[in-house]
Amino acid sequence: MGRLTGGDPSLLRRINSSVVLHALRGAGTSFSSDTTDCPTLTDLTRVTGLSRPTVEGVVEGLIEAGLVVVESAAEEGGAKRQGRPARRFRFRAEAGHLLGVEISPHRIAALLSGLDGRIVGAGSREVDESLGADDRLERVRQVVADVLRRTGVPRSSLRAVGVGTPGIVEAGGTVRLGTALPGWTGLPLGERLRRSFRCPVLVENDANAAAVAEHWKGVGQDTDDLVFVLAGLSPGAGSLIGGRLHRGYGGAAGEIGALHLLGREATPEKLLSTTGEPLHPLDEQAVAVVFAEARRGDAQAQAAVERFLQRLVHDVAALVLALDPELVVIGGWAAGIDGVLEPLRSELERYCLRPPRVALSLLGEASVATGALRLALDHVEEQMFAVETTVTARR
Amino acid sequence: MGRLTGGDPSLLRRINSSVVLHALRGAGTSFSSDTTDCPTLTDLTRVTGLSRPTVEGVVEGLIEAGLVVVESAAEEGGAKRQGRPARRFRFRAEAGHLLGVEISPHRIAALLSGLDGRIVGAGSREVDESLGADDRLERVRQVVADVLRRTGVPRSSLRAVGVGTPGIVEAGGTVRLGTALPGWTGLPLGERLRRSFRCPVLVENDANAAAVAEHWKGVGQDTDDLVFVLAGLSPGAGSLIGGRLHRGYGGAAGEIGALHLLGREATPEKLLSTTGEPLHPLDEQAVAVVFAEARRGDAQAQAAVERFLQRLVHDVAALVLALDPELVVIGGWAAGIDGVLEPLRSELERYCLRPPRVALSLLGEASVATGALRLALDHVEEQMFAVETTVTARR
Repeated sequence: MGRLTGGDPSLLRRINSSVVLHALRGAGTSFSSDTTDCPTLTDLTRVTGLSRPTVEGVVEGLIEAGLVVVESAAEEGGAKRQGRPARRFRFRAEAGHLLGVEISPHRIAALLSGLDGRIVGAGSREVDESLGADDRLERVRQVVADVLRRTGVPRSSLRAVGVGTPGIVEAGGTVRLGTALPGWTGLPLGERLRRSFRCPVLVENDANAAAVAEHWKGVGQDTDDLVFVLAGLSPGAGSLIGGRLHRGYGGAAGEIGALHLLGREATPEKLLSTTGEPLHPLDEQAVAVVFAEARRGDAQAQAAVERFLQRLVHDVAALVLALDPELVVIGGWAAGIDGVLEPLRSELERYCLRPPRVALSLLGEASVATGALRLALDHVEEQMFAVETTVTARR
Repeated sequence: MGRLTGGDPSLLRRINSSVVLHALRGAGTSFSSDTTDCPTLTDLTRVTGLSRPTVEGVVEGLIEAGLVVVESAAEEGGAKRQGRPARRFRFRAEAGHLLGVEISPHRIAALLSGLDGRIVGAGSREVDESLGADDRLERVRQVVADVLRRTGVPRSSLRAVGVGTPGIVEAGGTVRLGTALPGWTGLPLGERLRRSFRCPVLVENDANAAAVAEHWKGVGQDTDDLVFVLAGLSPGAGSLIGGRLHRGYGGAAGEIGALHLLGREATPEKLLSTTGEPLHPLDEQAVAVVFAEARRGDAQAQAAVERFLQRLVHDVAALVLALDPELVVIGGWAAGIDGVLEPLRSELERYCLRPPRVALSLLGEASVATGALRLALDHVEEQMFAVETTVTARR
């Protein structure tokens, strides 16, 4: 009994705010100087199907929160010249900003957007995979500071920061397990980064963030059921089910790196060996050499690549058999290797009762930071939709 | 914009109906003869938090639909003796019935319940695995007819029939792929069975049904994130995510039977061989013999069982790594084998970053039919909750 109540006025208010905000944001780009693109109360009432007093109340709340501004209305021509022209309203995408950050073994990247999600700045730098947690976080701060400085966006304008990083991430932003980066396991990453920002910091597994990104701006825009495989030495995966991120009960969904151990298959070091000795050190550079040799026709390298592909097929097939997604997106550095897609497709056809579509990531290197940005935007939109109860109260 | 409207009065009505129905159903058992257990309008208003006119409207609709009846109110003692006593309302669980049916290689089973889901009848019979589709469906009709006759429930009282069966089942009830039963692939099972019933027939994959069952009445009552592994020669699995069945984009989620082919592992026929020759025919009886020999100390049989368990571990680990459930329930005939649970637990501890709880099915043989019954009940409850718009209109 306790779960349902007779009606939730705050829920209704949020839905109404959401509807009005979507209508406002949909009305031309926010940087348009043509104010006739901006809707009037009458427009908003018509488009949303809400009553005029409801729309008026929501818009007042949004203006109070600084998210909407009244444009000086241009005179309309024709019959309506007499009388006061109707006020026009514009969504202020510039009222706040969002950051999407990738923290990976070799790379720190940041994307900056306005409240409409349009990218207004970007920055990245290569880092050493052996970098400790403190040094790595220092690089993150530098990349972010650099982006903010170059775009002229004040740090105080940031409304939320999303972060994508390898490992199992707990709801509060602590890395429960992250073997890809030194010092990452147990790191209270969200808490550490919150010291640099005065806004919410949301930490997400990198493959999960990438899945969100491909759904938002990449190859997965036309489906709500996709798996993103961040294919590398230790593959990870992120899944959207019905358009929502499936994190799993403990945030470990898609952590398929251990699958090959179960099948009694060789480790990547052995798979990719061309000498009989395990490949060491096993890093992207060493692997790139093997792939280049294979392309030049070296038989041993070709055999190594074939073994590597079989392992990828096996990992992806396990995900597909368990989840049955509509689309599998291959990202990570393996996506850059020629000839990954075709063997994957034909093998999945063989083993899967209902083979999914398979596509390469459209966003490539940008996928993790883009997904992190989207998660920050989701967070802020939730706040905006609760504008009357939450945002107003904060001011 | 098109997705949200300013308010959905029919949705609100359904929520209200649902709240009132839950309150009515929660008030004592439906066969209780003590009418003071039955709530009054005042009780319902207090418990639901809804307004009195709303409750009154909903109750009138439910009475009209035959789902609620006014009990002749007993005189209340004490101060309130004067005046007309308040009417008391009772949910009529006997107003309709539901069937849950299992159609498996060796067995047909049926469960019958009232609208409250309480079992009022059951029946089953062994069948030959070589039975063709027509003969198998004839056996289903016989089992159902027998249960109805023994309980005295008229066929016309059936509101919905749920069916659990191996294979990939499309939304309309056609078996897209079902290799476990002769003639099953392509069979319009829902359509065929609808000829025998004048109510909706819902067909579901057997492992999916079993997952629903364990969540409803089995070991999974305390979690919304579980995987049910129907462990047999070709394992299948059903998953609940956030309390909802995850069927996958094409209904093939959990069909992990092909996983061992990918790992280049041997087929079950080879795994379970004690002679060097593939085990043939491979059926439950042949496998039971191998397990019995292993228990008697036969070294070759013990090795075969070990290989079989490793395959099960591999299948379950793939599901766990992909989905990260809170609980894994082992059902099917492998659940009856001594010593399955401990090796599974310890191996999952080794390979999974966040190992789930592992438990044996509580419902055992009844799990598929119980889940099918629950799905039928879900369907009818959805209708009941839409009582004002749908059920009333049908009369």
